[in-house]
Amino acid sequence: MLGKTRRTHYSNEITTSLDGSHTILMGWVHEIRDLGGIIFILLRDRTGIIQITAPSKKTSKDLFKKLRKLKKEYVIEVEGTVKKSPKAPGGVEIIPSNVKVLAKSQQPLPLDPTGKVKAEIDTRLDSRFLDLRRPEVSAIFKIKSRMLHSVRVFLEKEGFIEINTPKLVASATEGGTELFPITYFEREAFLGQSPQLYKQMMMASGLDKVYEIAPIFRAEEHDTLRHLNEVISIDIEAAFMNHEDVMKILERLVVNVIKDIRGHCKDELEILGRELEIPKLPFERLEYDEVVEIVNSQGVHLRYGEDLSRAAEKALGEIMDGYYFIKSWPTSIKPFYVMPREDDPSKSYAFDLMYKDLEISSGAMRVHEHDLLVEKIKKQGLNPRSFESYLSAFRYGMPPHAGWGLGAERFTMALLEIKNIRETVLFPRDRRRLTP
Amino acid sequence: MLGKTRRTHYSNEITTSLDGSHTILMGWVHEIRDLGGIIFILLRDRTGIIQITAPSKKTSKDLFKKLRKLKKEYVIEVEGTVKKSPKAPGGVEIIPSNVKVLAKSQQPLPLDPTGKVKAEIDTRLDSRFLDLRRPEVSAIFKIKSRMLHSVRVFLEKEGFIEINTPKLVASATEGGTELFPITYFEREAFLGQSPQLYKQMMMASGLDKVYEIAPIFRAEEHDTLRHLNEVISIDIEAAFMNHEDVMKILERLVVNVIKDIRGHCKDELEILGRELEIPKLPFERLEYDEVVEIVNSQGVHLRYGEDLSRAAEKALGEIMDGYYFIKSWPTSIKPFYVMPREDDPSKSYAFDLMYKDLEISSGAMRVHEHDLLVEKIKKQGLNPRSFESYLSAFRYGMPPHAGWGLGAERFTMALLEIKNIRETVLFPRDRRRLTP
Repeated sequence: MLGKTRRTHYSNEITTSLDGSHTILMGWVHEIRDLGGIIFILLRDRTGIIQITAPSKKTSKDLFKKLRKLKKEYVIEVEGTVKKSPKAPGGVEIIPSNVKVLAKSQQPLPLDPTGKVKAEIDTRLDSRFLDLRRPEVSAIFKIKSRMLHSVRVFLEKEGFIEINTPKLVASATEGGTELFPITYFEREAFLGQSPQLYKQMMMASGLDKVYEIAPIFRAEEHDTLRHLNEVISIDIEAAFMNHEDVMKILERLVVNVIKDIRGHCKDELEILGRELEIPKLPFERLEYDEVVEIVNSQGVHLRYGEDLSRAAEKALGEIMDGYYFIKSWPTSIKPFYVMPREDDPSKSYAFDLMYKDLEISSGAMRVHEHDLLVEKIKKQGLNPRSFESYLSAFRYGMPPHAGWGLGAERFTMALLEIKNIRETVLFPRDRRRLTP
Repeated sequence: MLGKTRRTHYSNEITTSLDGSHTILMGWVHEIRDLGGIIFILLRDRTGIIQITAPSKKTSKDLFKKLRKLKKEYVIEVEGTVKKSPKAPGGVEIIPSNVKVLAKSQQPLPLDPTGKVKAEIDTRLDSRFLDLRRPEVSAIFKIKSRMLHSVRVFLEKEGFIEINTPKLVASATEGGTELFPITYFEREAFLGQSPQLYKQMMMASGLDKVYEIAPIFRAEEHDTLRHLNEVISIDIEAAFMNHEDVMKILERLVVNVIKDIRGHCKDELEILGRELEIPKLPFERLEYDEVVEIVNSQGVHLRYGEDLSRAAEKALGEIMDGYYFIKSWPTSIKPFYVMPREDDPSKSYAFDLMYKDLEISSGAMRVHEHDLLVEKIKKQGLNPRSFESYLSAFRYGMPPHAGWGLGAERFTMALLEIKNIRETVLFPRDRRRLTP
């Protein structure tokens, strides 16, 4: 049971300058070595590991007995004195005056939190709480958290207002089939696969620039290393802007986030062995036509007008390094709300942001003219009546606008060069996995 | 179509100090007055309204003709010169040199964006994009956005890490019946009604202090002014803390948010006519027993052991002003994960934060002992097997912990003294409403 005392320091706050100070630490028994006359305990908390050293001569019998009974992964509270010690890791250790067991752990554990025994991803996800005790796992989530923080700071500085749009929707966003049906009282409803239509409607409200960071749900049957059925989407939409304006915001966002993470997540990047380079601005902008050429020149067949296959992405990733845009996509393979180019309506103002062979963001200047939008909805075989409340926003003064969606997990994969998207989600949801 | 020019100023950036400067503004035609020899246009953007003044003598014939054709709620781009003018609202106006229509508006509008014609909430929600053109509506969402910003800044300063937990779940959080069922491929799943079990599992991970701001879904049939079926929940959970520790975090958060909003949303508060007082710390802490007495003394019957009825809340709200806690709730009416008091297990370490007659947050110290948790799950008639992955986190070193959930909409209602929760959600979801 937690008493009246509280932690005074995290382990990484214990430095030689605190030599002689009284401290209270709380965390997990990472390792315990009982050499008879001396007991060493490695105490682990969110910030790292610190050594507790109890020589029998300097420790009360009662306390020594208590320490001897500790087992790996017990949760303990240690009161003691900081002592400089060149031999200890970090040059500092704690000489304990009291220890209290706050929670025990069954032995053995279903997963080894020291990481010495390797485990498959599925075993790790089944015991995610233990998996996260490994610094190289928690580092990913600390960086993802910082990335989201940094994205918000950047967008708010740029004048974007946070909005919350509904995830329970009456009909398909893009008329797709990738929707999870819900029973909403006596009606059928769906889970939002994107805030697209809502953030566009906000452009007619005068809020001018909006962003949302929220879960999206896609009932894709994909079982790949890059897809999940529930992910976090970072969405923006801005009025009086075109595709190039929001591409500039996106590339500056990427650079800002990277600088911020380099500054604030040094320890985590070191644990992951990742040197994050700051990409140069502006990012390269490839035309879709060029992409078709590059892919074919790499011996992978891509017909003009097709979306990129996985093989095409890989071929492109071998030529292109770092972050780059693909723009001027064929209108026919992009959603109805994407604006066709005036000079050649078969091409569009849609763009993707790529990192090597990974698509991390999609965006476009949107159609803001009501009649063109209706025409495009029909052309895609959809019924404009299903889009009535969306279309209504285009009748009473809808400014030109543009926006993008950036996958939070895809971006984390790019930042940390992670190959499996499941590594970037605490509790992934895929075709097979719905627990924990 | 958007050309190469971009907005140089928002309307509220045009001050007398810019007298003589060239400017480009973009927004909606709020009002237009054609007096024959002079045309006045009120241009509205996110920040406010500015007057465009076109005397026929100083305006080219071509431009004058264009201006004359403008209609209410057209989206326009105006190029012109700033001119000091004591008669104009704000003491400044724009003398136009060019105007461009970016989008037209059908007439009449289904809702009057000037607010002169009053409309019912349902009509307003049907055309939310028009409703938001009224400053007293958009002010609510600007403040809600700032509140969320301010909550994050506060929690991150307090050492909390943002997490994202799944909204697609295999089973009930608290065994309740208030769940929306989903078809998840060939299986049945549910929408998360709270991140409770996930944030608790994170306490066994060593992340120490976590927070999440995300939608929650409740299939309650309630049709009240305080309930919706989809809302945003602000959740925290902290290891090595008890109920009192997280109550202190919560009350300091409320005070910090209020100070921040007073500093950053002066215009919005003024538009809403709201004077936000800074509450004194600590907030009053009522025992549940006292609450029963107060309510009964007000002539509303409340039996010991019952949850507060709406009538009881109202009776309490007549006595209690501002923010206050209710603590020591009966264990029997709180969920299984709430820690019973050691001195009297019929009472618990659960608390609610109230604002007058409105509950805005619930929290507790949690049960962290595996066996007690299993016992409590059984006592509530639930099957511990359904909670296997949750319970697993309590077997391998689960520290004592506590947390709370704060309703983002309820908090906004308290901040702005709003009576209907629908006023605080862009696109509310209730028993009857699933669109737009």
